[in-house]
Amino acid sequence: MKHYLQLKKLFERISHLHYIERILMWDEAVMMPEGAEQSRANAIATLNRSTQAILTSKKVKTLLEGAKQEEGLSAWDSMNLQKIEKIYRRATCIPLALTEKSTKSALTCEQAWRKLRPTNNWKKFLPYLEETFQCAKEKAERQADVFQLNPYDVLLDIYVPGFNQANIGPIFTQLKNALPALIQHITHKQMHEPIQIPQGPFAISQQKALGIAVMSALQFDFQRGRLDVSHHPFCSGSPMDVRITTRYREDEFITSLCGICHETGHALYEQGLPSQWIDQPVGQIDSMAMHESQSLLLEMQVCRSHAFIAFLVPLLEKEFGKQPAFTQENVFSLVTRVKPSFIRVDADEVTYPLHIILRYEIEKGLFSGDFKLIDLPTIWDEFMTKYLGLSTKNNDKDGVMQDVHWPSGAFGYFPAYTLGRLISAQLFATLNKANPMLDKNIKEGDFQPLIRWLKENVYCYAASLSTHDFLQKVTGHSLDTTYFINHVKQRYGIGNS
Amino acid sequence: MKHYLQLKKLFERISHLHYIERILMWDEAVMMPEGAEQSRANAIATLNRSTQAILTSKKVKTLLEGAKQEEGLSAWDSMNLQKIEKIYRRATCIPLALTEKSTKSALTCEQAWRKLRPTNNWKKFLPYLEETFQCAKEKAERQADVFQLNPYDVLLDIYVPGFNQANIGPIFTQLKNALPALIQHITHKQMHEPIQIPQGPFAISQQKALGIAVMSALQFDFQRGRLDVSHHPFCSGSPMDVRITTRYREDEFITSLCGICHETGHALYEQGLPSQWIDQPVGQIDSMAMHESQSLLLEMQVCRSHAFIAFLVPLLEKEFGKQPAFTQENVFSLVTRVKPSFIRVDADEVTYPLHIILRYEIEKGLFSGDFKLIDLPTIWDEFMTKYLGLSTKNNDKDGVMQDVHWPSGAFGYFPAYTLGRLISAQLFATLNKANPMLDKNIKEGDFQPLIRWLKENVYCYAASLSTHDFLQKVTGHSLDTTYFINHVKQRYGIGNS
Repeated sequence: MKHYLQLKKLFERISHLHYIERILMWDEAVMMPEGAEQSRANAIATLNRSTQAILTSKKVKTLLEGAKQEEGLSAWDSMNLQKIEKIYRRATCIPLALTEKSTKSALTCEQAWRKLRPTNNWKKFLPYLEETFQCAKEKAERQADVFQLNPYDVLLDIYVPGFNQANIGPIFTQLKNALPALIQHITHKQMHEPIQIPQGPFAISQQKALGIAVMSALQFDFQRGRLDVSHHPFCSGSPMDVRITTRYREDEFITSLCGICHETGHALYEQGLPSQWIDQPVGQIDSMAMHESQSLLLEMQVCRSHAFIAFLVPLLEKEFGKQPAFTQENVFSLVTRVKPSFIRVDADEVTYPLHIILRYEIEKGLFSGDFKLIDLPTIWDEFMTKYLGLSTKNNDKDGVMQDVHWPSGAFGYFPAYTLGRLISAQLFATLNKANPMLDKNIKEGDFQPLIRWLKENVYCYAASLSTHDFLQKVTGHSLDTTYFINHVKQRYGIGNS
Repeated sequence: MKHYLQLKKLFERISHLHYIERILMWDEAVMMPEGAEQSRANAIATLNRSTQAILTSKKVKTLLEGAKQEEGLSAWDSMNLQKIEKIYRRATCIPLALTEKSTKSALTCEQAWRKLRPTNNWKKFLPYLEETFQCAKEKAERQADVFQLNPYDVLLDIYVPGFNQANIGPIFTQLKNALPALIQHITHKQMHEPIQIPQGPFAISQQKALGIAVMSALQFDFQRGRLDVSHHPFCSGSPMDVRITTRYREDEFITSLCGICHETGHALYEQGLPSQWIDQPVGQIDSMAMHESQSLLLEMQVCRSHAFIAFLVPLLEKEFGKQPAFTQENVFSLVTRVKPSFIRVDADEVTYPLHIILRYEIEKGLFSGDFKLIDLPTIWDEFMTKYLGLSTKNNDKDGVMQDVHWPSGAFGYFPAYTLGRLISAQLFATLNKANPMLDKNIKEGDFQPLIRWLKENVYCYAASLSTHDFLQKVTGHSLDTTYFINHVKQRYGIGNS
């Protein structure tokens, strides 16, 4: 195993440099003064160049060839070696200069996006996005040649290994067929349900205290992580140093709190990964669908449930005082309101998949050449009108400019959210079957049984199983939209027709 | 200039990686959760390894040889090339494994120091320090062979290029001869001067507001920097992203405020460096004596002066309300109290050099082999008793364990403080001669003329001149202790005897 062990050592170094990159990303979003933008973009490009230099060295090639001949590898080691080879093949088809150009352009584009989105300035933003898209496309095409795949499938496989247009298409079609009727049914029903809006202001210091109380209850380990503020909530860092963020508004606290629950789901997954593997590819979650399944399991399945709200209401009263809106029923209504809206990150769980399907279809069109970037505002408006009955005409900040993904070069990421949501529903159904007391535990604020189950049935596998094998092993079934559809029907009180 | 230009490109990359390292150091001290210590140490070691790999590559050697034959280099470029060669020669004599070991051991030692100092646990700390010292010594010895120097002189030259035991010795002897009588005189005089202690608590949010007001007045550019809190004040980052820190206590505000003034001096120097050279060795301050001269010029010469205090008192009253202790005279007394004490960073400007001389003499002894680490508590106690009349017996946390420098591997750094202090006094005398209105400007809170002079006479040169040439050019004299001694006599009202 001489070659394999040396290979592991090299990939450990690559993992260190990735950790550094993620801390720098966090710093840029949370701490960095604005004047450092250009310096930071240059520095990250250089760092990536160093990472690429290790990854694409001839030594890796030789070691890979040697390691593949070696015997006695454990199942985890074999999977690790497979992942290493895939990473190596992906990287070697991208020239250093293109990697550097693409990193720099994505950083610059993201910085431009932060400034231009608030002023709704699509025209000024477009050239930045053009360059970032061209880089992403060129990289995808080079990889497509190597792996004999369609370029957009290459990107899907990066974020959700094992998934492609052929297996995502039917899943999304099922959702497109089922959701509109459900949305209509639910919005009609909710129209007649009274709802009371909590009265602010809600001091940021108290919202933060509330968030930390919830994170602590959910077993977030503050010895290995922090909570901060950024423009867009995210989770970064590494298992020993998990950085999550949220954003606060004084007039309402629910968005921020749900953001914290979501990111805590990501964070717990990271903190729960097997520590002996954290610096190897097999120990790191390469499927963003799996990662989102954990954030959405917490945010959507757990934290918006009646049981969780029973636990939450006393905390709300402790931080903000009593008020008529703080009944369990009303808070449940607040966090389960279904209403077609512009912004994906603020969307309810029922309309959310349509936001994703829209983005997926646009990305497909961009990569097939059917759509052009310059036409995106019009296309976006058309799709939004078709799926959600809302027009984004002259409102690009709430339309095509709303997400950080494309400006940062992450084309192909979006489907991970909805695939993750479907996985989370499927897992939660299994979890409830395994622990009939779960609802009671949550009500009482005892999250240990929940997190223990996740540790023993999800976190512990890291990336040692494909998503398909994982679902078969843990839930007994392959990915199935039925769990999510049933969850929606149950939560929103819709009988089977 | 083909070779030289390629060399510049490589050193630009090295500069990017150094910027990253400094942000990580800042993050570790200010933000990082404790559980990430080991991960962080590993990551920084890997980063340094990447930097070393670029620096010590054969390509640099080839380019250096080529560049030295090239003509048409400007004075700055020639100096840059000289510095590049020195850095290259220093680096190539250290094997990668030793660099990695030394970085890791210093980080681990510093982390141990943070925990063990508060509990006064020298015994548990000693093995960490042993390893860090051995690494530093081995590196110094390897460099000593290459440069044909004494190992301790190698280290001195790293932190204060152009200085060594032969020229530091006589300077320190002059101070050792002059200071004890001055200290005795001043402490005797001050014994009879009334002093009123400001009554706290001083809320940290208000101390921070005060610090930011002072930094703004001193022209700190918050677009390119931040102020935060750490265990030990420092300045890190890069000219476009300067991170300074202080620490607060609720019972008094002066230590923290003086820390901010000190670090602001470092920060202004960084922010004032010529922007086209910031990623090249000639554009970066390699002399810590020069860097300290700027922090001390602000802290000691400017911020503890009568003129500055006239500007400061209204700010104090704005933040903390009026109180009897807030008279100009009393605040001046507070910031100019001379009293032999244990802690270097809290020492007054008159006893301070003796703290440095003590450390310098101990370091000399450690590197000559006359002293052993295990005996440091006893030696420290002896020297403190001799120079300042204070015993540190059984009080290592306020003795040999008080500074971050040795735990972090920075042997040879200390003389930079006192050399910097001497330079600052010499520069300030020149500055006052050039601008007779300076005192009035400061009183009125108009720091523009002061900072402009520093920009035009100090910052603009970056590292393009040796300290000796710089002093000759700007002050007309080589380094001279007279300016500092005269300053002490003047500030503390001592006539020439």
